Amino acid sequence: MTFQRVRALMSEAGIDCIVATSYENVAYLSGAIIMTQRQIPDRLAAVVLPLEGEPTLVVCNIEEAQARRDSRIRDIRAYVEFVTSPVETIAEVVREKGLDGARLGVEMRVLSAHYFQEMAGFLPKATLVPADDTLDTLRAVKTRDEIDLLQKAALATDQAIRSAYELGAPGVSDKVISDALANGIQASGADSVAFLVLGAGPGASLAHPVAANRPLEEGDVVRCDVGGFYSGYYSDLARTAIVGHATPQQEKAYELVWQVHEETIAAARPGMQAKELFFFCKEAFERQGLSLNLPHIGHSMGLGLHENPILNPFNETVLEEGMVLAIEPVHRLDGGPILHVEDLIEVTPNGGRVLSRSADWSTLFVMKA
Amino acid sequence: MTFQRVRALMSEAGIDCIVATSYENVAYLSGAIIMTQRQIPDRLAAVVLPLEGEPTLVVCNIEEAQARRDSRIRDIRAYVEFVTSPVETIAEVVREKGLDGARLGVEMRVLSAHYFQEMAGFLPKATLVPADDTLDTLRAVKTRDEIDLLQKAALATDQAIRSAYELGAPGVSDKVISDALANGIQASGADSVAFLVLGAGPGASLAHPVAANRPLEEGDVVRCDVGGFYSGYYSDLARTAIVGHATPQQEKAYELVWQVHEETIAAARPGMQAKELFFFCKEAFERQGLSLNLPHIGHSMGLGLHENPILNPFNETVLEEGMVLAIEPVHRLDGGPILHVEDLIEVTPNGGRVLSRSADWSTLFVMKA
Repeated sequence: MTFQRVRALMSEAGIDCIVATSYENVAYLSGAIIMTQRQIPDRLAAVVLPLEGEPTLVVCNIEEAQARRDSRIRDIRAYVEFVTSPVETIAEVVREKGLDGARLGVEMRVLSAHYFQEMAGFLPKATLVPADDTLDTLRAVKTRDEIDLLQKAALATDQAIRSAYELGAPGVSDKVISDALANGIQASGADSVAFLVLGAGPGASLAHPVAANRPLEEGDVVRCDVGGFYSGYYSDLARTAIVGHATPQQEKAYELVWQVHEETIAAARPGMQAKELFFFCKEAFERQGLSLNLPHIGHSMGLGLHENPILNPFNETVLEEGMVLAIEPVHRLDGGPILHVEDLIEVTPNGGRVLSRSADWSTLFVMKA
Repeated sequence: MTFQRVRALMSEAGIDCIVATSYENVAYLSGAIIMTQRQIPDRLAAVVLPLEGEPTLVVCNIEEAQARRDSRIRDIRAYVEFVTSPVETIAEVVREKGLDGARLGVEMRVLSAHYFQEMAGFLPKATLVPADDTLDTLRAVKTRDEIDLLQKAALATDQAIRSAYELGAPGVSDKVISDALANGIQASGADSVAFLVLGAGPGASLAHPVAANRPLEEGDVVRCDVGGFYSGYYSDLARTAIVGHATPQQEKAYELVWQVHEETIAAARPGMQAKELFFFCKEAFERQGLSLNLPHIGHSMGLGLHENPILNPFNETVLEEGMVLAIEPVHRLDGGPILHVEDLIEVTPNGGRVLSRSADWSTLFVMKA
């Protein structure tokens, strides 16, 4: 990475120097995955990237050895936690670069109000402007390496879901399925599980439940929405199954959702706006006589779980070749259990290319003894 | 919970109404675990808690069913993502309560600069003041139920580490150990793994590595620092082992670290300041001829991973009975591999009561064929 592209975007946005502080953008710009940014947000890491000249990576000294091993940014500045505020070190770096009177692009949607006010205090002559959209744009089109990694992650996770679902049967605890999902993701090459949603029976009506340690019963809907971290990148897939047997109505509803899903995937083409894909999906639902009551029908992803473009009714981001999208239509059966399918696609001139199917999910998966 | 204690703290701090927006404080005040707060920070949830009158829980409509199931706050207000900003809904709730000219306590260290500015815009007559310390104080002393849960979580995680380490031997991949750790935590009753650090050989010199998929070699130091989510609460333990056999120097160094660890645990008593325990540990290291180069030697934990008090050289929080502390002295062997032990203790008048040992870790664990 030569920083050419991010600098072109900075010029367009009138930003003299980026001060990136999210896990995602620090990882993207430096190549160093600083895991504690997710768990311990006070322990800030930052990339200070001027329009011209060397960028600097600021990390807590605890992370310094790892940052030196992994970062493509060679100028690394460590602060000692509790002795020095990370923002003080960032401000020093900005001053050294002669940019303390410049327009600094900060991640307003991520940086805490506390650190933001500190930054304004340490750099009173600087103008702090939002860099969120610029960095979103930078990361929105994936490289071939990123797409390959995301595909590998998605396929591995899909395989883990399939294997876990094959353990399902009446009388088996939903926690057994949940543990098998986690173990499968872990064993598939993930560095760790990122999130683990499993709802069965009553839990299938909730958005983000965990296993209730309850035996599966005939007729239960089972839904998972799970992901792992693979070399810093997410997987994120949802699959729905039923225990014992499906009623014809359930089978039919699933098939309709699947049809909407396939149509939406096929429609995802460069040049259309994110919101147009949302409305395409909404209309496809309505053609099937189903209503769509979702704030979004999918999202991009990568180092972050929900990345821009989000496929909602307002997002005017134009889809481009090489973007990846998690497409996830959801339908509630009689206002109750959630039928949810989610696949990862790559946007191509021929429509969405599915990256995430290790098996056929076009019919409702039935868990039997 | 009657909100009596938090309201007393609010009065002391001159806060008319708390607007809590972190995962931790929303969970603590409402009882509802909104998992997406961790993964999708834009999708804000909030507790609006006035000094007098009913509190309100604000959630995204996707989370409404789950919030209604789990929240002890009965007034639940849902916003539709992308249609309405969560902050707009929060501001409406504040106005309804007649508090739009009041002193609103917000989580400055968690709320993003973007949402903070939005809040100031929607509530121009309000005075936004930091509520971070007030909420830290609220959560610092644990209830008996919380301590029991944290103990159960810690013991389960410790057992998972022991079982995983028993698989270690020359030639076994570090990823096998890492996967066994994750699977053990998952099977021990965790809803999911929260974080998973494993370093072996070269990785043992780094603070937060993941398994490198490299076979263990005789003499490798293996260090883990892992935790799970158990009903919303963290476990967090670190253990160090060696492959094949330890040199007398390594055995001795481990024993010294363990001795410092035990002395520090025994010294943790109500009435002392957090920084005093830090300096006690530092001096114990120095008595053993070892230097301490850590920004902190431990931290409280619970719904959050690093909670106040943090045991650093500056923290003047007075330890109280019923606080829990993760005590984690670290020593580098010849500036290289990290010897790291971490236990969870409860502060009692008789010193720290260890909550986290399922086995004897007082000597360096040796992985043999």
